[in-house]
Amino acid sequence: MRDISVLTERDLRGCVHLDRTAVDVVEQAFRALASGKVVMPPILSMDLPDVHGEVDVKTAYIPGFAGFAIKVSPGFFNNPKLGLPSLNGLMILFSAQTGLVDALLLDNGYLTDVRTAAAGAVAAQHLAPREVTTAGVIGTGVQARLQIIAAHLVRPFKKVLVWGRDAGKATACARDIAAAIGVEASATDDPAALVRDSQLVVTTTPAREPVLKAEWLHPGLHITAMGSDQAGKNEIDPAAVAKADLFVCDRLSQSEKLGELRSARAAGFKPVPPELGEIIAAAKPGRRADGDITICDLTGTGAQDTAIATHALAAARKAGAGAVIQA
Amino acid sequence: MRDISVLTERDLRGCVHLDRTAVDVVEQAFRALASGKVVMPPILSMDLPDVHGEVDVKTAYIPGFAGFAIKVSPGFFNNPKLGLPSLNGLMILFSAQTGLVDALLLDNGYLTDVRTAAAGAVAAQHLAPREVTTAGVIGTGVQARLQIIAAHLVRPFKKVLVWGRDAGKATACARDIAAAIGVEASATDDPAALVRDSQLVVTTTPAREPVLKAEWLHPGLHITAMGSDQAGKNEIDPAAVAKADLFVCDRLSQSEKLGELRSARAAGFKPVPPELGEIIAAAKPGRRADGDITICDLTGTGAQDTAIATHALAAARKAGAGAVIQA
Repeated sequence: MRDISVLTERDLRGCVHLDRTAVDVVEQAFRALASGKVVMPPILSMDLPDVHGEVDVKTAYIPGFAGFAIKVSPGFFNNPKLGLPSLNGLMILFSAQTGLVDALLLDNGYLTDVRTAAAGAVAAQHLAPREVTTAGVIGTGVQARLQIIAAHLVRPFKKVLVWGRDAGKATACARDIAAAIGVEASATDDPAALVRDSQLVVTTTPAREPVLKAEWLHPGLHITAMGSDQAGKNEIDPAAVAKADLFVCDRLSQSEKLGELRSARAAGFKPVPPELGEIIAAAKPGRRADGDITICDLTGTGAQDTAIATHALAAARKAGAGAVIQA
Repeated sequence: MRDISVLTERDLRGCVHLDRTAVDVVEQAFRALASGKVVMPPILSMDLPDVHGEVDVKTAYIPGFAGFAIKVSPGFFNNPKLGLPSLNGLMILFSAQTGLVDALLLDNGYLTDVRTAAAGAVAAQHLAPREVTTAGVIGTGVQARLQIIAAHLVRPFKKVLVWGRDAGKATACARDIAAAIGVEASATDDPAALVRDSQLVVTTTPAREPVLKAEWLHPGLHITAMGSDQAGKNEIDPAAVAKADLFVCDRLSQSEKLGELRSARAAGFKPVPPELGEIIAAAKPGRRADGDITICDLTGTGAQDTAIATHALAAARKAGAGAVIQA
């Protein structure tokens, strides 16, 4: 018999925040990835066409972290008809020393939201120009909000522009961002102008055709593309990838299969891009000049999950949150 | 907010038993496997040499089952030095309709023990000769006991022979089996004699060199090999696989990589064996005569996990066992 912490979404929302600490722990995971000592198997994916569902399982062991997470992310796309969310999921945190279960994090995807936004902040911290006065976001969902809130932690810009296919959603997103971080934020109906007026742009869409075109690129721009996480998705014009001074991905093997590198490769892009962790660890060069154009593709890694889950358990213990089961 | 059942090992031991119902539900999973409609991704495996550990994740979606399980099985082989078990694990049961978590089964491997033994009974039911008077087991661990208890449900033999490298453990195993099912059971120091005198033999070892030799085979023998579940393991002499009238595996793709078919293939065995589910579904022929020699290799499938987890939740609800978390 031993103690297992059980933390619900409510518990976790109370003690894990999208703050500098979360960004730092995710940065640490990326740095570790570059060491070559992380064990991160390919994502286990199960497609369930019968029920319009899919399930992904991610994990990673990171030396130096007290635990490793296994994250299960189901997506069942008939759920909205039943009044249920499509996406949910949980993480299980195991002791890295004994393999015993330390915690069940019943987060319904909340920790994924946090670690995904934190990864965006890590990308911005290491790749965006030093001065960002305006940040733009393409997309109007939860990650559009969180990516901008996270990026603001590392580049305290004054102004935010939001574009989405639905103008009403873009307006609501801008309003929420303004309320969250106290900057001027507005919706625009012109994504080209959004990119032109921004030094940092985040794309957060499920697009299958590029939403950001090569001709919109300008010196001193950094783009983080976090939408593509499946074969078939594509946010960034392959010509933009070729045109940028630097293209970076979170995990090469994933970006080629699930991310922006897939469509760039299909269009003839040959270089082997660095991984974000290699730039953090200074193993490969990042941005060389304020005028460079940089693009970072984030597909989401099990290392981020292990990082946020370890952080969440520590935060919950500190806060005395959650329940304990003897099992 | 919704209800998630949480069941500990103690809860599960109280309501899930190695009985005919467990065997039937596992048989149902094997039959479904043959339908081609089961979705069962390859096992996610993570080797952690730094900490002498490994983690396997198995899952399968079976049409007609209310849920699907994801099973995480860590094995950390320094644990005994810390007074902890090497193997443990848990299953998460998701609704097959919505992907939402229905139950957390903190079984520490108990359900795996039950479903593994139940699969042995399914193999014996469909492949052993009709009359079994003596059953032999090679190996003296938990599965040696459970495999014999399970096989007795489908072939009510009168006598059991046990062989293991450690004579004391073999004697203890025989004593436990006799107490559990009320048959005559004794240890032997001669595995050749054990096989000669048995009509049903189960091998339950972690052997990396064959423990059952081809020259011991005799007409009217069925062997179930359940030990091999990793590349490198091998219980059955490849010449025995070639000599048998029928070789069957639980999952061809797994048996070739992790099971007895791996070493048989390396020794030149070419045929494509049937899967157990195909024999259950009568899609392929099984034993043709009482004098046939049959061998069944069980590597363990995610389908068995989904079957036992679904059964466990139903049994726990019926018994009012476990706790409920709102998450």
